[in-house]
Amino acid sequence: MKGPKITKPLLLLDKVKCLSNIAFMAGKAEKHNLVLRPHFKTHQSATIGEWFRDYGTTSITVSSMTMAEYFANHGWDDICVAFPFNRHEMDTANRLAKKINLHLTVCSAETTEFIKQSAVAETGIYIKTDTGYRRTGIYHDNTSEIDHILRIIRKSKNLVFTGFLVHNGHTYHSPAPSEIERIHAQSNARLVELKNRYINQFPGLILSTGDTPSCSISENFTGIDEIRPGNYVFYDLSQCHIGSCKPSQVAVALAAPVVARHADRNEIVVYAGAVHLSKEYMVLANGRKIWGQVVSPDPGGGWTVPVPGAYVTKVSQEHGTISCDSEFFSRIETGDFLIILPVHSCLTANLMRSYTSTEGQLTDHLAAIPPG
Amino acid sequence: MKGPKITKPLLLLDKVKCLSNIAFMAGKAEKHNLVLRPHFKTHQSATIGEWFRDYGTTSITVSSMTMAEYFANHGWDDICVAFPFNRHEMDTANRLAKKINLHLTVCSAETTEFIKQSAVAETGIYIKTDTGYRRTGIYHDNTSEIDHILRIIRKSKNLVFTGFLVHNGHTYHSPAPSEIERIHAQSNARLVELKNRYINQFPGLILSTGDTPSCSISENFTGIDEIRPGNYVFYDLSQCHIGSCKPSQVAVALAAPVVARHADRNEIVVYAGAVHLSKEYMVLANGRKIWGQVVSPDPGGGWTVPVPGAYVTKVSQEHGTISCDSEFFSRIETGDFLIILPVHSCLTANLMRSYTSTEGQLTDHLAAIPPG
Repeated sequence: MKGPKITKPLLLLDKVKCLSNIAFMAGKAEKHNLVLRPHFKTHQSATIGEWFRDYGTTSITVSSMTMAEYFANHGWDDICVAFPFNRHEMDTANRLAKKINLHLTVCSAETTEFIKQSAVAETGIYIKTDTGYRRTGIYHDNTSEIDHILRIIRKSKNLVFTGFLVHNGHTYHSPAPSEIERIHAQSNARLVELKNRYINQFPGLILSTGDTPSCSISENFTGIDEIRPGNYVFYDLSQCHIGSCKPSQVAVALAAPVVARHADRNEIVVYAGAVHLSKEYMVLANGRKIWGQVVSPDPGGGWTVPVPGAYVTKVSQEHGTISCDSEFFSRIETGDFLIILPVHSCLTANLMRSYTSTEGQLTDHLAAIPPG
Repeated sequence: MKGPKITKPLLLLDKVKCLSNIAFMAGKAEKHNLVLRPHFKTHQSATIGEWFRDYGTTSITVSSMTMAEYFANHGWDDICVAFPFNRHEMDTANRLAKKINLHLTVCSAETTEFIKQSAVAETGIYIKTDTGYRRTGIYHDNTSEIDHILRIIRKSKNLVFTGFLVHNGHTYHSPAPSEIERIHAQSNARLVELKNRYINQFPGLILSTGDTPSCSISENFTGIDEIRPGNYVFYDLSQCHIGSCKPSQVAVALAAPVVARHADRNEIVVYAGAVHLSKEYMVLANGRKIWGQVVSPDPGGGWTVPVPGAYVTKVSQEHGTISCDSEFFSRIETGDFLIILPVHSCLTANLMRSYTSTEGQLTDHLAAIPPG
């Protein structure tokens, strides 16, 4: 990338690929007549958030109240916090609900009752629904708990039932796109059952779903109203692995200085470790664990295709070890920069807290704000 | 902990335990007549760094040039950067070498030659030596490369040979303390061979070693001059697991709000995920992967002993799932805070970037400085 001299690990952002990813999902939502409420936890950046507006985005998803406040301060006025509501942040929720359309997510009648008693302004409520992932949410057949929540909402002054919200995180562990389709279809069917059951009582209720794998792969959104994918803004190696995207769509990559070479074992040591890439790994078909893959640089400062067999095979705090073949090894010198696709771009972006694009450095990442 | 109202995940720091850990290692170094050059990459905090001075510490280790500059700006004047020198940071190295005793680490004659040609002030050079870990460094029997480096140093105006530096990271994967002792003893013997070979040419050369497991467990430091453990300042579950410490010595823990409960499977969902704890896991004897363990709170705001069987068994970006028995489950309510010992305290501290102790919040963590 053109711009400031690179001396340390930097997260490169290919804006062309990123905009193409944003456009792809906006087009898909439009085709299926879905509201796209993209999850902003992947990029956590006000500047990148602005890029979505040109593609029609007006409502967003975040995963913390801190993130909600950050994006509200940057002009977003319809925000869903897709995380089980943490009652210790009720003050923030009330502050936000007074100025924007805030939607909270609940997993129990108890928390709904707490919000009912504490809310001072109109607040949307999504019921977090579990259609099979088993992380959290009310299991879709537990209609007694759902009824209980809806009674609380109906009696409240400030709460509005937005709809049922699901996240099928188990698509990330699918061995093949067909399994993603199966999870997605089953989940949608279960959501539609809930809609049919409650639509007369709450004619405005919506069904909100949409992990990146399902939204990337599937063309089946029957009965669904809203999707909330997030990772697709950058994609990553995990998404390539499960078939959500191609390596050419991955929009972020870590530039890492080569600091040592070991010819006896075709290993290259780079300044890029767990505090840059994260400890998220994936397992290749041959059983090998990897924390990243090297891509070829292009003359413009970006990158092109993956280098076959050149993987990050070990990470410690600041060290990354690249294993490669002897041909690639022989071309690399100490002091070169290698460009590495991350396994999980959300975690890498959260650690790097800054992007370097052809337009310069974007440092307005939420995680760049000092804690206090 | 007393102090500001807790609303979100916070990294608690037990200063009493932390000082006890600092004192323990200072005592061990004194007993064995070793220079203790603690690694500050674990805490990355100027305030915590100050606590070491009362125990005689005057020289430190860091793992990046950025960290070296941060601690130099906080009054440390003898710093070893224990990471293969990244030649793109020569300007920083020169700036530091003019004002403090800076020691760089080299893994090749080539990088040594680069430093020789670029150094403008006296700079110490450690030869990174591999005595068996096989991450990086010159393999201990490769005396032709060592001779080559030493010839370059001898011919240079500004370079001074400090000694041989080793890090035995494989002690972290030892199944038992006896294996740590074996690795440590073998490594020390290999270092002593090098000392015997080169001491006549460089009478001031030192042998520097010391991962936290070896330094915690071993009483065998024959021939060694300096140790550089870092993690012991906090310790963590990994260190407990390999026998370096007891849970009562772990000085940091994450306070995490409970946001959901699932009675059907005795699972508690907390606001504490991969962006707080990191994705570092460990494997229990029963084969289960865990990302943390719950400890019992004490009335003063700290914590006491681990809760048997209450582990973090899943993490996603902000979610953590605690699996526990029904007795513990029944005692926990939504809105409670659970206190969690991290698997790898260095990575958790790097993500949290702030400590909350009984003395209030310490926010002077290097990673709290915005990038840019």
